[in-house]
Amino acid sequence: MSKIPKTIELRGKEVILIDQTLLPSKLATIRCRSAEEVAKAIERLAVRGAPALAAASAMALAVTALKSKARTKAQLMAELNRAGERVRRTRPTAVNLFVGLERALKAANSAEDAEGVREAVVREAQAIADEDVAVNKKIGENGAALLKDGDVVLTHCNAGALATVGYGTALGVIRAARSRGKRIKVIADETRPLLQGARLTAWELQRENIPVTVITDNMAGHVMSRIGVNAVIVGADRIAANGDTANKIGTYSVAVLAKEHGVPLYVAAPTSTIDMKLKSGSEIPIEERSPEEVACVRGVRTVPKGVKVFNPAFDVTPARYIKAIITEKGVVKPNELGKLFKR
Amino acid sequence: MSKIPKTIELRGKEVILIDQTLLPSKLATIRCRSAEEVAKAIERLAVRGAPALAAASAMALAVTALKSKARTKAQLMAELNRAGERVRRTRPTAVNLFVGLERALKAANSAEDAEGVREAVVREAQAIADEDVAVNKKIGENGAALLKDGDVVLTHCNAGALATVGYGTALGVIRAARSRGKRIKVIADETRPLLQGARLTAWELQRENIPVTVITDNMAGHVMSRIGVNAVIVGADRIAANGDTANKIGTYSVAVLAKEHGVPLYVAAPTSTIDMKLKSGSEIPIEERSPEEVACVRGVRTVPKGVKVFNPAFDVTPARYIKAIITEKGVVKPNELGKLFKR
Repeated sequence: MSKIPKTIELRGKEVILIDQTLLPSKLATIRCRSAEEVAKAIERLAVRGAPALAAASAMALAVTALKSKARTKAQLMAELNRAGERVRRTRPTAVNLFVGLERALKAANSAEDAEGVREAVVREAQAIADEDVAVNKKIGENGAALLKDGDVVLTHCNAGALATVGYGTALGVIRAARSRGKRIKVIADETRPLLQGARLTAWELQRENIPVTVITDNMAGHVMSRIGVNAVIVGADRIAANGDTANKIGTYSVAVLAKEHGVPLYVAAPTSTIDMKLKSGSEIPIEERSPEEVACVRGVRTVPKGVKVFNPAFDVTPARYIKAIITEKGVVKPNELGKLFKR
Repeated sequence: MSKIPKTIELRGKEVILIDQTLLPSKLATIRCRSAEEVAKAIERLAVRGAPALAAASAMALAVTALKSKARTKAQLMAELNRAGERVRRTRPTAVNLFVGLERALKAANSAEDAEGVREAVVREAQAIADEDVAVNKKIGENGAALLKDGDVVLTHCNAGALATVGYGTALGVIRAARSRGKRIKVIADETRPLLQGARLTAWELQRENIPVTVITDNMAGHVMSRIGVNAVIVGADRIAANGDTANKIGTYSVAVLAKEHGVPLYVAAPTSTIDMKLKSGSEIPIEERSPEEVACVRGVRTVPKGVKVFNPAFDVTPARYIKAIITEKGVVKPNELGKLFKR
């Protein structure tokens, strides 16, 4: 259905991904021929978004296996572990990156010989990518019922097709509601510093003729108070066992504003984003990125040289601000995540 | 004391002002030789900030009077009224612009002949500029007591020397506290879309060695929750009789965050910013500016072409979010503004 090409795919011995740093001015793909190239693409956010990083990290191992000349399982596993270590160091917050690596390594390890390892890693990377789209459609289906015809939905950052292999989580819910005939309008926070809302969310919604208005992040309060917002839907980079949710910096501010205006805030994410090993959000590592991302906007310096700049890439929204978490296994209250993992 | 040149001054038959659109990369002044040139400088925000606009609008009339060849009071008053109409159309929200015009026109009208009108307008424009600095120092004096040694103060936009003729309102309070030996640290919201926090507040604080850290607007909640902020101080563009305060877009969001974290929010403004004719904030006109200001950052496009963008320049913070209003006549609760105007 989508006019948006796949965010990331494994083709031959290469990982092909949309270079999201070039959007919206240019839609171009890059080819990564090694785990190192995938790791660099992750670091500079050519590919980003928690679910997309699961596929990216597994595909990094797949290209490693496909390119490797190793003849024994032990040799190949050593190479895969080294590649995994490299990819693991790219970004600390989105748990899906680690989930993708672990799944690929586990599949590899269960094979008998080098050729079996190659096949297993490729199969697992492909499975992660395929599951992602299916899971997102299910998230959309489960979340669509929460929206009414005519609703105005505010979203922060990009939890869309571009943050996943396809379809999206938060934007997947909006797509699903629209495909059921609900006329949803979107308010997109531009999402400083890297403007994923202005650049990516606006781009993908425009391509599907979904009405979207971009605002600066600091307009969210004014828009809720003067224009009215019916729901906030965001994605997640990691959800702790108690429902505390790490997501793009600024999500917490939006959550406080939503509470003040009685607007429900929903987190849309696959269950793979839930990290039951962490008791609360205070245990989630928060990536700090280069001050230059704040001090220079798309290459133009805005902060005087020598002035200190703070650049946390994520913040944590405590569970009490979250009305519900929309997953592929159902919609649950943030304090009921355990339900999702019972058999 | 300041290493910051005057924001605006009347010199000969010209208005000399710092072109704030060029900061922080370049400190340069422009010369306005007519009311039209001053009006254009106001429209493109070469000069901005409510108190500075009072001086700018009066000086626009002063240069009109000085350049005029009118021989009669009636001729000159007609010219001044026309010039005033032009300046009046530049920006609707900051009430000080209208106060400046009215004071200059009233002074003009009280003179007997054309020469007297010229002298009166120049004298009044100069008085407004001189008073501004004196009033700001008094605001600083009154507000300094609210801050403690070691406090971290968050501010939004630029309510500093550059928003006034000199010294500043919100930043004036910080300057006064520091000159009393209190080691205040400042967190400056970058303040999208036009980045007055990143460009102007950071620039002027850096020049005086006042510690400042720039954050994107959407980090304010995270900073309050994880790092801690002791007070928020902002300026104002217009304050209604009930204490509702219009200020740069994003102020309302900061106010909600401050309330949620138990952080006091202070508005620092001269009494000339209080518009007792307006009962509440809903009566304050809110300027909407070009969508391009949001869609292009310092000349680089970030929002896809054809996507809708919203760009209100101000928002209104209801009085209940404001702990106190710091004026040159004293610090009052927002519901006690009447006290300031009693004799």
